[in-house]
Order: sequence, then C-alpha cells, then structure tokens
Amino acid sequence: MTTTQWDATSLTTRFQEVRAHTERLASPLSPEDQTVQSMPDVSPTKWHRAHVTWFFETFVLSEHEQNFSPFQEKYWFLFNSYYESLGPRYARPDRGLVTRPGAHDVGEYRGNVDARMLDLVAGLDDGTLHKLAATIELGFHHEQQHQELLLMDIKHVLSRNPLEPVYGGTRPQTCAPDAMTFVDVEGGLVEVGHEGDGFSFDNELPRHRQWLEPYRIADRLVTNGEWLEFMADGGYERPEFWLSDGWGRVKADGWRAPFYWTQHDGVWLEHTLHGTWPVNPGLPVAHVSFYEAEAYATWAGKRLPTEGEWEHAVVADGQADAAHSGGNLADLEHFHPAPAAPAGGEHRLRQVYGDCWEWTSSAYHAYPGFHPPEGAIGEYNGKFMSGQMVLRGGCALTPPGHARATYRNFFPHGARWALSGVRLADGGAPRVAA
Amino acid sequence: MTTTQWDATSLTTRFQEVRAHTERLASPLSPEDQTVQSMPDVSPTKWHRAHVTWFFETFVLSEHEQNFSPFQEKYWFLFNSYYESLGPRYARPDRGLVTRPGAHDVGEYRGNVDARMLDLVAGLDDGTLHKLAATIELGFHHEQQHQELLLMDIKHVLSRNPLEPVYGGTRPQTCAPDAMTFVDVEGGLVEVGHEGDGFSFDNELPRHRQWLEPYRIADRLVTNGEWLEFMADGGYERPEFWLSDGWGRVKADGWRAPFYWTQHDGVWLEHTLHGTWPVNPGLPVAHVSFYEAEAYATWAGKRLPTEGEWEHAVVADGQADAAHSGGNLADLEHFHPAPAAPAGGEHRLRQVYGDCWEWTSSAYHAYPGFHPPEGAIGEYNGKFMSGQMVLRGGCALTPPGHARATYRNFFPHGARWALSGVRLADGGAPRVAA
Amino acid sequence: MTTTQWDATSLTTRFQEVRAHTERLASPLSPEDQTVQSMPDVSPTKWHRAHVTWFFETFVLSEHEQNFSPFQEKYWFLFNSYYESLGPRYARPDRGLVTRPGAHDVGEYRGNVDARMLDLVAGLDDGTLHKLAATIELGFHHEQQHQELLLMDIKHVLSRNPLEPVYGGTRPQTCAPDAMTFVDVEGGLVEVGHEGDGFSFDNELPRHRQWLEPYRIADRLVTNGEWLEFMADGGYERPEFWLSDGWGRVKADGWRAPFYWTQHDGVWLEHTLHGTWPVNPGLPVAHVSFYEAEAYATWAGKRLPTEGEWEHAVVADGQADAAHSGGNLADLEHFHPAPAAPAGGEHRLRQVYGDCWEWTSSAYHAYPGFHPPEGAIGEYNGKFMSGQMVLRGGCALTPPGHARATYRNFFPHGARWALSGVRLADGGAPRVAA
Amino acid sequence: MTTTQWDATSLTTRFQEVRAHTERLASPLSPEDQTVQSMPDVSPTKWHRAHVTWFFETFVLSEHEQNFSPFQEKYWFLFNSYYESLGPRYARPDRGLVTRPGAHDVGEYRGNVDARMLDLVAGLDDGTLHKLAATIELGFHHEQQHQELLLMDIKHVLSRNPLEPVYGGTRPQTCAPDAMTFVDVEGGLVEVGHEGDGFSFDNELPRHRQWLEPYRIADRLVTNGEWLEFMADGGYERPEFWLSDGWGRVKADGWRAPFYWTQHDGVWLEHTLHGTWPVNPGLPVAHVSFYEAEAYATWAGKRLPTEGEWEHAVVADGQADAAHSGGNLADLEHFHPAPAAPAGGEHRLRQVYGDCWEWTSSAYHAYPGFHPPEGAIGEYNGKFMSGQMVLRGGCALTPPGHARATYRNFFPHGARWALSGVRLADGGAPRVAA
Repeated sequence: MTTTQWDATSLTTRFQEVRAHTERLASPLSPEDQTVQSMPDVSPTKWHRAHVTWFFETFVLSEHEQNFSPFQEKYWFLFNSYYESLGPRYARPDRGLVTRPGAHDVGEYRGNVDARMLDLVAGLDDGTLHKLAATIELGFHHEQQHQELLLMDIKHVLSRNPLEPVYGGTRPQTCAPDAMTFVDVEGGLVEVGHEGDGFSFDNELPRHRQWLEPYRIADRLVTNGEWLEFMADGGYERPEFWLSDGWGRVKADGWRAPFYWTQHDGVWLEHTLHGTWPVNPGLPVAHVSFYEAEAYATWAGKRLPTEGEWEHAVVADGQADAAHSGGNLADLEHFHPAPAAPAGGEHRLRQVYGDCWEWTSSAYHAYPGFHPPEGAIGEYNGKFMSGQMVLRGGCALTPPGHARATYRNFFPHGARWALSGVRLADGGAPRVAA
Repeated sequence: MTTTQWDATSLTTRFQEVRAHTERLASPLSPEDQTVQSMPDVSPTKWHRAHVTWFFETFVLSEHEQNFSPFQEKYWFLFNSYYESLGPRYARPDRGLVTRPGAHDVGEYRGNVDARMLDLVAGLDDGTLHKLAATIELGFHHEQQHQELLLMDIKHVLSRNPLEPVYGGTRPQTCAPDAMTFVDVEGGLVEVGHEGDGFSFDNELPRHRQWLEPYRIADRLVTNGEWLEFMADGGYERPEFWLSDGWGRVKADGWRAPFYWTQHDGVWLEHTLHGTWPVNPGLPVAHVSFYEAEAYATWAGKRLPTEGEWEHAVVADGQADAAHSGGNLADLEHFHPAPAAPAGGEHRLRQVYGDCWEWTSSAYHAYPGFHPPEGAIGEYNGKFMSGQMVLRGGCALTPPGHARATYRNFFPHGARWALSGVRLADGGAPRVAA
Repeated sequence: MTTTQWDATSLTTRFQEVRAHTERLASPLSPEDQTVQSMPDVSPTKWHRAHVTWFFETFVLSEHEQNFSPFQEKYWFLFNSYYESLGPRYARPDRGLVTRPGAHDVGEYRGNVDARMLDLVAGLDDGTLHKLAATIELGFHHEQQHQELLLMDIKHVLSRNPLEPVYGGTRPQTCAPDAMTFVDVEGGLVEVGHEGDGFSFDNELPRHRQWLEPYRIADRLVTNGEWLEFMADGGYERPEFWLSDGWGRVKADGWRAPFYWTQHDGVWLEHTLHGTWPVNPGLPVAHVSFYEAEAYATWAGKRLPTEGEWEHAVVADGQADAAHSGGNLADLEHFHPAPAAPAGGEHRLRQVYGDCWEWTSSAYHAYPGFHPPEGAIGEYNGKFMSGQMVLRGGCALTPPGHARATYRNFFPHGARWALSGVRLADGGAPRVAA
Repeated sequence: MTTTQWDATSLTTRFQEVRAHTERLASPLSPEDQTVQSMPDVSPTKWHRAHVTWFFETFVLSEHEQNFSPFQEKYWFLFNSYYESLGPRYARPDRGLVTRPGAHDVGEYRGNVDARMLDLVAGLDDGTLHKLAATIELGFHHEQQHQELLLMDIKHVLSRNPLEPVYGGTRPQTCAPDAMTFVDVEGGLVEVGHEGDGFSFDNELPRHRQWLEPYRIADRLVTNGEWLEFMADGGYERPEFWLSDGWGRVKADGWRAPFYWTQHDGVWLEHTLHGTWPVNPGLPVAHVSFYEAEAYATWAGKRLPTEGEWEHAVVADGQADAAHSGGNLADLEHFHPAPAAPAGGEHRLRQVYGDCWEWTSSAYHAYPGFHPPEGAIGEYNGKFMSGQMVLRGGCALTPPGHARATYRNFFPHGARWALSGVRLADGGAPRVAA
C-alpha cells in the first residue's frame, strides 16, 4: 500500500469526516433494519459499523495505546471479519444472529474508539505519526469500502420486505443518452498499476508493464433500454450467448432479468434505495452478474475489456482520479446521466466513475511481483485472489473520492447484489498471423 | 373445540390479561432481540406478538366488525402462519428478514386491535357474544401457545450469542429429589379425550374408549443426574439403545448431550433464560428429543408411556387440571423440585405439570371420529397429524392455567429446542399368550 | 419370531426353492442393470443377491460351521445392510459404487454358501436342527423380502432410462371392477397380532387386545380411474385435502400424479416392469405415498383404516393367509382384477392380497410388550419403529406365500417407489359423547 | 483449430489406431466397472466409449453420409455431452443410471460407426476429404481427451471400492531425483499460442504477443517427498499459506493430503491404477488441486508460473512437442523419473511432458481475438472459459503424441481427481518502480 502525507490536523479531520459519514449512512435505519442478514453475502448494518471500528481498535489502538484494553473482550471475536491470524472468527453466515450488542451499543463502541483514536493521534510525535498514518489511512479506505457495502447490503435487506420500505433519496429523472460510441486506443507496451504518492491498496501494486494490442472501448455504459432489447431477443433463453457456468445459473436460479427487476402487469420495476419504480431505459443497467455482462457482450458482437485495457484507456483519457462519485444522501444511488457525446473531433470516455462497477474480462489475480504485507494486514487482499473477476470504476454508492483509475474491486462471477454494470470493448486482436 | 361460558365482562377481563401477559414477556427484549430468527423452527418475538394479534383481526374483527378494514393490508400476508385457505403465505424461514414493521410498530398494531376488540365485545348482544366467544377463547389459548413458543424461541436466539445474554429470572436452587418410583395403574377399557364444558382444542376430541393392559408409570421425571449416568455409560455412543433414525441424527448432528449443554473444562453447563450455569443434577433433564428420550428408556430397561396411559394415570390421580404452572417472570423456567414421595401407603404422581413437556410413545394422529371444524380454523391442528410425536403435561414456560390432562402437544422426533423431558413407564404387556 | 416345524428334508427343499427364486428374478438383468443404484432408497440387484447370502453366512454358517472362514473377508463389510452390532457398515447410498464383485462373482458367492448350507443342514442332529431352523427360516423370509425389493428397485432403475427397457412379463388386460362397497365390521375388544405355530416376524408380536368401535372397510382398492377423478377435481392443487407435510412435498417435489405416471400428448402413461403403457383405469392405483393416500381419503370423505381394523376385518373375513400372490415371472406385477361383488347377501372383502401394499393410518410402533430378540438379529425390525407408517396385504411383487393377515410392512410417509395403494375405511367413531 | 495434411490412407490408418486404443483401455474393465459414475465429475467408461463415437456420427456421418440414419435414435440424446445447440441433453450426473445400452451394446455401436466412417472416407473425392479431415482430426483429439478422462475416471471409481481392485500395470520403481533447480528465462515481448500446420484446438489460438518480465522456472516437478515436508510443517493446518477459498475447502472437505492418499498405521499409501502402495517420495506429487499447488508454492517462497511463462520456457527449451508420453498399457500411470540434472553448463527443463498436468497461475480465458467456430463445434471450448485454471504439459495418462507446448487443459480450482501436479516459478517482478 502507498500512502498520502499526513499531519496530526489533517489526519484528525479526515478521521472525523470518514467516521461521521458512516453514521450518516446508518441514520435512516432502525435497530431492526441494522440487525438482519438477508443472505450470507450480506452483513448487518450494525456489524459494518462495529467492524470498521474494530479495525482501528485492533490495528492501531491495541498496538499503540498506552495501557490498552479492549472496549469489550468479546467484540474482538464478534467483529473480526476474516483475519485468520488473529484467532478464531465468528462464522460469517451467523452475523445476523447477534442481537446484542444492539445498534445503540455499537454507537457507544464507536464513540469510545473515536475518542481514544483522537487522543492517541493528538499525543503522537511526528515520527510515530508518520509510521502510524499508513495504517490509519488504510482504516479510512477500509471504512469507505464498508460504507459502500453497507448500502448494497441494506438494499438487499429491504428488497426482501413485502412492505417495500424506502431507504431514502429521491427518484432520478429519466434521460436519454446519446448513442454508444467506441474510443480507439493505441495500446502497445503500457504500464498498469498505481504510481505516485497517493493512497492505494496493495493489490494495485506493483506497477508493471503489459502488452496491449490496439483496441476500442465504449464511451458509456450499457443502458437499461439496451438491456431490454437483449431480453426481448431471448437473451436469457438462448444458451449460445452464455458461458457454460453462467447458463447453469440461469437455469438453476431462474434468472430472467437483472437482480432487482420484477415484472408486474407486464411492466418491469426496479427496487432501489429510493423505492420501487418502473425501469428507467436511459440509465445504466445495474445489478447484473459477470455471466450476464459476458452474455450481453457476446450477443452484442463485442466483448468486455480486460482490466489493463480499462485502466490504460481511463488514464490516457486524463481521468486518473474520481472527482465526484457518491456524495450526499439525497443523491444516493443517483446515476449520472451520460453527458452528451462531444460534437466533433476526438472521442472521450463520457461516463467513468460513480455509476456502476464495471465487469472486466480479467480474473482477479496478483500483479507480477505482488507481495502482501507482513502480519494480519497481509490478509487484506491477497487471499481472495481466486475465483473472482475484477471490476473497475466505482459506483453510485461509492463514497466521494474513494475510487481511482487503478482501483481493483472484485466479486464472484455470479454476484448480483453489488451495483455492477457493463462497458463493452472491441478489437485487441493480435497482428501476428495464427 | 369445546368452550367455557362467558359474559362480556369475563371475556373482556380475560382478553386484557392474556394480551398483557404477552407484552410482559416481550418487555425484557430489545428491538434487535425481537427481530432475529435463529433457525427455521424459531419465530422472531415481534412476529409472535403480531401473529397472535392477526388471529383476532382475521377470525373475529374481519367477520364481525362494522366497516372492517385491516390495520395494514400487508400485515395480513406477513403474519399468517399457516392458513392456506386464507391465501398465499410469507415463507416461514424468511420471518427473520422482515425488519419492518419494527417492534414498536407491532406495539401499535396490538394497541389498535385491542381497542377494536374491546369495542366490539362491548357492543355485542348476548346471542352474538355466545357465538363469538368460542373463537375469542380460541384466540386466548392460541396466544398462550405463542407465549410459550416466544420463550422457547428467544431462548434459542440468545443461545447463539457469544455474549451469553440473560433474558431474566433467577437461578433455581439445587435440590435432590427422592428416588423415582412407579405407580401401578389398572387399565382396562378406559376413556380418553376431553369431556365437560371447559375449553379444549379440537385434537383432544372426541372422547373415546381405549383398551389398556395394566401398567406402571414413574412418579417423577428423569433428572439431569440420571441423564449424566446414561452419558457416562456410553449413552450417545452405543447404537443398541437407539432407533435407527435417532442414531442417524446422533452421528449426523454430533449429539452428545442435551441440546443446551456445553462442556467447559470438564464441567457441563446449561444455557437457560436466566444464564449459563453448571448442570443441576436434581432438576429434570430438559431439551432432549424423542429419540434421546426413547434411547434413555431403552437403556434404563423401561419404555415411554403411550399418551393414553399418561392421560389415564393423571386423571386417575385426580390431577385433571394444572394448578400452578408458569406464572410470574421471576419464576420463569423454574422447575418445581419434585415433592417428597408420600411416606407410606398409596403412590401418587408427584410431578405432573409445569416442568417439561413429556414425550410419549404415541404418534400424533387424529382420535377416532375426529373432524376438523369447517373453514380456515379447521387448519389449526388436523393437518399437522403426521410425522410428529405427542407430548403431555406442559412445561416451566407454559402460561398459568394453560395445560390440562387431555392437552396434546406435538413435535417432530428430533426437536430439541422445545422444553421437553422424560417420564418412564413399564408393564402394559398383553395377558394373552403370543 | 414364531416358526414352523421343520425337518432336514423340508428345510433343504425350501432353502433351494427360495434361493432359486431370487436367481430367477435376477436372470433377465444384465451385469450393468444389476450394478446401478438409482437413488439412495434403491439397492443394486447384485447387492440384494449378495446381501441375502451374507445373512446365511453370518447368522448360520459363522456360528455353526466347523472351521468356518468367510468366503471373502471384505464381503462381510460390503453386504451388511444395517446391523450396527456387527461392526462398521458400508454406507447405503454408496452401494452403487461397488463394481466388484460383479454379478458373476456374486453368483459364485451364492453357490458357495448354498453348498455349505446344504452340507451343514445334512449333518445336523435333530436337536441342533430345531434350534437352527428358526434362523434359517428367518433367512427364507428375509430373502423373500429382498425378492420383492429387488423388483421394486429394478423397476426404479429402469424407469430412469430414456430407452424405456422392459424387465419382462406381459401387459395385463383391462378390466372394469364393480363399484366399491363397504363391509360392516362390529369391532369391540379384539385381538391383533400373530398367533399359532406358523412363521411370523417379531414385529407381529405379542398378540394383544385392542378396542375397536364399529367401522366399515372398502371391499376393494381404489382404482386408477377413481384416482383420475381425484386429479381432475384438483386433488394435487388443493391444500385442504392434504396434511401439512404432504402439501410441502407436493410443492417441493412437484407431485401431480402417482410416481410412475407421465403425461404425453394429454395421455397418462404408466411405467411398469412390462413396459410403459396408458394407465389402465380398472386396475388399482399404485405407487402413491401415504400423503397421497390420506389426501385421497379426505377428498373422498373417507379415511384410511388403522392397522388393527385392517387385520381384524381380514381375519374375520376368513383370509388369514395369502393364497396366491406373486408367482411366476410372466405374471409379475399383474394385478388381480377385483372379483365381482357377491350378488346378494353378505359383503366380503374381494381384493386382499397380491395387488398393492395398503397404507394404514397407523404409525409403525412396537406392539405393547414387544421385546426384540437378543443379539444382532434384534436389529431386524425394532429399530425402524419411528417415522414410518404401516402397510398391509402384500403386493403383486410379493413372493408366493410370503404375505399374511398379521404381516406389518412399513415405509416413510413420502415413499412412492414401493408398490403401495389405497383402501378406504369409514365409521369407527366413539359412541361416547364428546 | 488448425489441422494436419491428410490423405485417405493416413486418415484411415489414424482413425483405426485411435479407435483401437480406446477399446484397449476399456478391455480390463468389466461391464459393471464400465457402468458406474462415482461422482458427478466422473463419467462411466461405456459412456466415454459411446460419446466419442457419437461425435463421429453427429459431426461427420449425419452431415455427409448418404441416406444417413442414426444407429439408434435415442443414443443421440444419451451421448451428447454438452452441445446445447443440438437440443436437450441427458443430465450429466445421471450418466451412471443408464444401464442400457450395456458395454457390449456400446461395442456394437462403435463397430457400426467405424465401418460407416471407413466407407465414407474411402468414397470421398479429394476436395471433400480435405474439408472433412479437419472435423475427423478433431474427432481423433476429442477421443484422445476422453481416453485420458476414461483412465482418470475409472481410477476414481475403483478407489471407492473396499476391495481395492487393480486396473492394471506394474508398480514403478522408486527413484531419487536430483535437487530442483531453476532455469533463467529472459522474457520480453514473446509470442504464445499455436503456430504452424499441425493440429491445435481453437483455444490455443490466435497466436499473440505477451510481455514477460525475466523469470525463473523449476526444471522438474515437486515430488511426494517434498510434499511430505510441506505436510510435516503444518501445510494443511496453517491458513497463512492458503487462498481464502482454498482454506474453506481444506476445512469443509477435511483435506490433509493429496486426493488418493490414505494413512494406515502411520504410513501414507497412494491409490493408483496398479494398486495401493506406500507413497514413493521420489515421484512427482499428483492429484493435488490448484489451491494445494498454490499453498505449496507460498509455503516454498515461490509461485506458480503463468501459462505464458510455461509455454515460452518450454518452447525456448526446444520441447515444442511431446515425444513419448503415455503409451502402452503396462506403463500406464508410470511417471518418468526426472533425468539427472546436466552436469554443468546450461540448465534445461528435465521433466516436461507425461507426468502430471501442471497447474499454472492463469485463469482459463480466451486469448485476445479468440472466436469460436460457427455451429455446435463452437461449443467445444469457449463456453468453459470461466472459473477454471489452466494446466499445461500432459500427464502419465495422456495418449502418445497428444500433448504439445501450446496445449491448454483446464480444471476448476478444487479439482483433485485429475492427474495434476506442481511446477514452481520465481521472479517475473517488474523493473519499473512501484
């Protein structure tokens, strides 16, 4: 992991911002809402709130606080997500069984750790602060990841309730984006992976060289309207578009539309955090699995980009950092209507961050030369590098400033509860003869 | 079902008592506690509170209230437990996904229905009241059944929490009951089933004749201490004591002690509503399945009583009605130390109601001539008459006055989360030669 | 178990008859047919052939043969069906994995044990023969049970093959039985269970008294034609006819007709050992589960008989023993067209043995005073006395002379691969007021 | 797919060779052995024999034979493995239920198709022959793939039998290979994928450029002896070596050694086609999953090679084609003792083909520019390109001449029944700074 330069003031300010944002996201949720785990992939809201707190208590306070003792001995066990080296863990699918500590108790836990963290940072000399800042900054980004998960997860919890409860926000306006066009990218021997001083996760490193044949990449995401055409053309009924495993899931799980779509009286409705509404054809399609994304691309005569192609195109387009994604609660899960295509001249990528995580055709593996950090933190990313696919670009639930061009998200091929969408690519074929 | 004689005052008073008792039982539980379903057999507390309310709204108000409209249309769907004839139902294993209505909303639902019920009863003429009283009284007993289930269920929920939360109450004192003795019962052509004017469920009817050979029945339940002897003698390791299906469960589920027992540093502890304590050898063993009860009886060279034998013995003993069981919260899950055996003369049954539901060797089937009532109420009991065994006698979580000698409870052979125990029997062999 | 009087000649003759009949039943089956286990309930043909041989080797030869050593050490492990006290067992669902010994090897095993058994019996003095005869006779009846299972099992194996292979036999003629009528039975204090000198299994004992209210019992089985009426009236779509567990199976497993029925172009076909043919409306319905039998009876406004009612009616009708059932291969799975109803006067039971095992409303439990024999043979029946229902009467696959009025067969409530059908009953209500 | 140049004689000769080899492999197997499917991944021997025949009947005869009619209409349905575009398929896990056609019937099917194929080829004009040869050659390689699978599958079937049957062959001698050394490879912008006129599958194309940093690759496979060291060091008990999914499998499935290893009296034995023998420390470890291979590499401080690295190293080493692997039955599953390391000078790869399929760190994806062929043949490879890892090099069960440097095999991460082993790599880190 690489890190930013911090002093006590900036670190303290950022700590308070990040911590406050989590509580803001949880504030519309009742104690009951915060308790339930609607499927094994989902974690309860209060678990997220406690787990990100546990991270600071475990990786910062326990190692640096004088006379450290945990807020509650048993919380160490309850709120460890997956760090095997820290001892036995509470089984993930049982997170929804833990009625106590309640939502209010978790608030007390957060308050206690916040106060101790601020005390600790205030009392550090510069040298220690510089050393500790890397872990604390990792804690910020860790908490931001959970802010996004908290929203994806509660979206699923609320979707299972026949009362159709609304989390909040308002319904985005309809829109009709310009036609999808494809941007030409030269390729060659390019560099991918994080560089420079800013923060990155370990899985974005090391920066390394990769050979790309010339390729083309779509300037915006596939829309709901385009997805409806795929469905109308038998997209979910014709095995020739599908990977074998994907077709197996279609049959076994009865997939016939994106995850949160239901059909009532012939109209497709979509469950969102701001209610259940008719599908908006101008917005990007969301909550499709890798298998669906891949089948769509096959149907469209295109393909998904590799993660190297995605990153190189975005960086070449001058969009290394996410400017705007996510933000205030009222805008939650608002997609950004794809801006108008440039009137003439050079094509640009119109819609990069803040809409949907974009499936790539790359399996999630270590970059060449990757080495996880020593100790429990080393379990952060590396051990998940099998059986998942990389997604790029952040989504409409990603906290502001969290995404960037080199950011690698990853989910299993069949995951649909994440806010994932589709960008197409083309070309990239070798010039050497077969 | 048979019923009591009611007037408006007695009906109103009883209604308020029963309804208040449910809320008293829920009062120590947080909104989070009330939300969780820790296994498919378990229902959330707030679901119990709402479902018993739905019963009155559905079977009384909807048919008799002027200008009836439901408190919430969707609650009819959410809180229907199993009445197929009332339309599609919300899947039982998903009860724990419903975060809304919350615990507080359910309180409002209860208040609304209570007020409307009292209004309705106050305005009834005598003839209508007499007709309606049967359904309302069924609602009392239905709510009492759920009071008991609410406690069994929350006991399980809390047992899954590493923080070992306590529901309430105090730990019962240790005791050392007199040796088990066996009461001789003559048998012959006896009558079983409910008779007289008091309330009974439909499954206790019709009263009918049954032939019993002379038999003997234990005057008290098997204790934890006796169960420890069974365990020490390889009770859970020797297939010769077990039914084939029971032995399958022992192996598949790793049974090696009653359900809520765990061993720490060589000491057996028992999870109860009032905490986790060392097993008390003088108290009745609880939370054993039919398979375990049956294996214990085989090991002891005895057998379980049939439900006819149990009922006939209890009635002959002059204990047709439960005097005392359950009661105030402080006593919850307190067993009654078996009274001293009578000094001389006639043996009596010392421990009948209010400790553990007692497994019998009788499958739960209809009595000869049984006919369920017409309409949805007819689904109350009859359709569960397969694959379950009858238990008799009530338990330490049964509300006061709910149990009686003819009461037939029933659970599947492998159920362990109910407060079930063991009474032995002997004899009953035919006098005719084989 | 009770037994017949045997001498060396009669025992030897019977041994050879029983053993030969098994081989005759297996003879139309290829080595491949004999190997497959099409579901966990089913055993491969060659396993049946070997297991019944293992019975004689284990319970007779190993205890009485001089210088006994097993034919093959490992066969003891492979062909033990469920005797826990004889050591670890080969897992039942894995019986279909054992390609060796092959069908031919099993034939050699059978020949070896046959020769040794005949040698042994020839050399016994009278006293020993009388003692051993009980076990050998049990072996005859054990083998006959497996002859029936072999046919039920291979029927299932062949049913899974798209080539629709035929086991053998010819298609029975269509027929149109007289209307079902009900025979009045007086009841009272009757005796049930085996009596006299002939063979019986331990579960038919002890003979004991039982009280029966007057009842009526159908003189023939329910036919396919009658079942089609049930289906046409929404039998498989209306929950009000069904036990709760039964309705669960209907929904989960998609039941919509008897087990081996399939619909092609609107015509219901039935898979049989002699081919797949249009359903014959005049024959008894077969391959229905207890749940279906019970639902049919509810739909018909009737009920199933208890096993006591069944036995008492059959004995009172003068049909204690099965005269004819089963028999030669050409007749296999031929039902007996129900004879014409007597023209006038007294009603009789027209169709008792040799068509379908008849579901009763009695759970399979021990008779009062039942004690299994000592030793491994004690596991023969007793340990299966939970979670199953009693069936009576034998079926069209039962070997000649195997069934009798006191014979208790048993299967789980949902079992459909057995040749099971439905006889209705009525009345039996108590005269005492409720 | 690319193809060889064929004339009628060479094509006929090769056809007969390939077809005969399948029958030779099946010849030690009884009809019973050939029938069983011991787990869903495994197919019965007679299914393999029939399916490869169906391939020629479907893709060659049905399109080119005059007056074509299938040998048996139903075989088309039974022996289609996965071609969705050819209609509904018989469910893979049910292949073991098909007792008929039997092994002998399959022999007749093979004979019929062989004769018709030879007739067809004999009658073709040159132009048609050249067009058809590509499909027929694909049929050769398809049949060879199934020859290998047939052996892997029957190895599993026999492993489930307590009688420990032997397929055939003799036990290889023990050996003690020289220490593992690492060969330096320069990398750079290399080409991977098939080139030239010989046969290749479509997934080996198109040949394309790839950037490789300098790396090192082991000159031989990891041995059983080295694996025992991994086990002794807690390899299967320490989560820090494992991918998260891999560790999940270790716990869920109880992995503690390679697939076919069992421990008796402290000695590790290995099930092979030639019997069950003590593990030979000098031979390559076999039957380990990707997860195990990856964990071993982590433990050893190394990594697995990418498929590009593997291919480039082997081609650079001058070993584009497999000279010797597999062969006659007596040698089946004989590993080649790794030859002695060269005494001095340049390092070479000592052990490339014919021992174990070697796990790479590359997910099985399409090469850039990959397009599956039109029609059903297009389903041959492309649709399996998700959720699997690439293996290279062939194994001791691969038919002679079948493997080559560009050959891409693939299995799921957890597959262990394939003959898969481990080659380590190192280096490859980028020179550009992070």
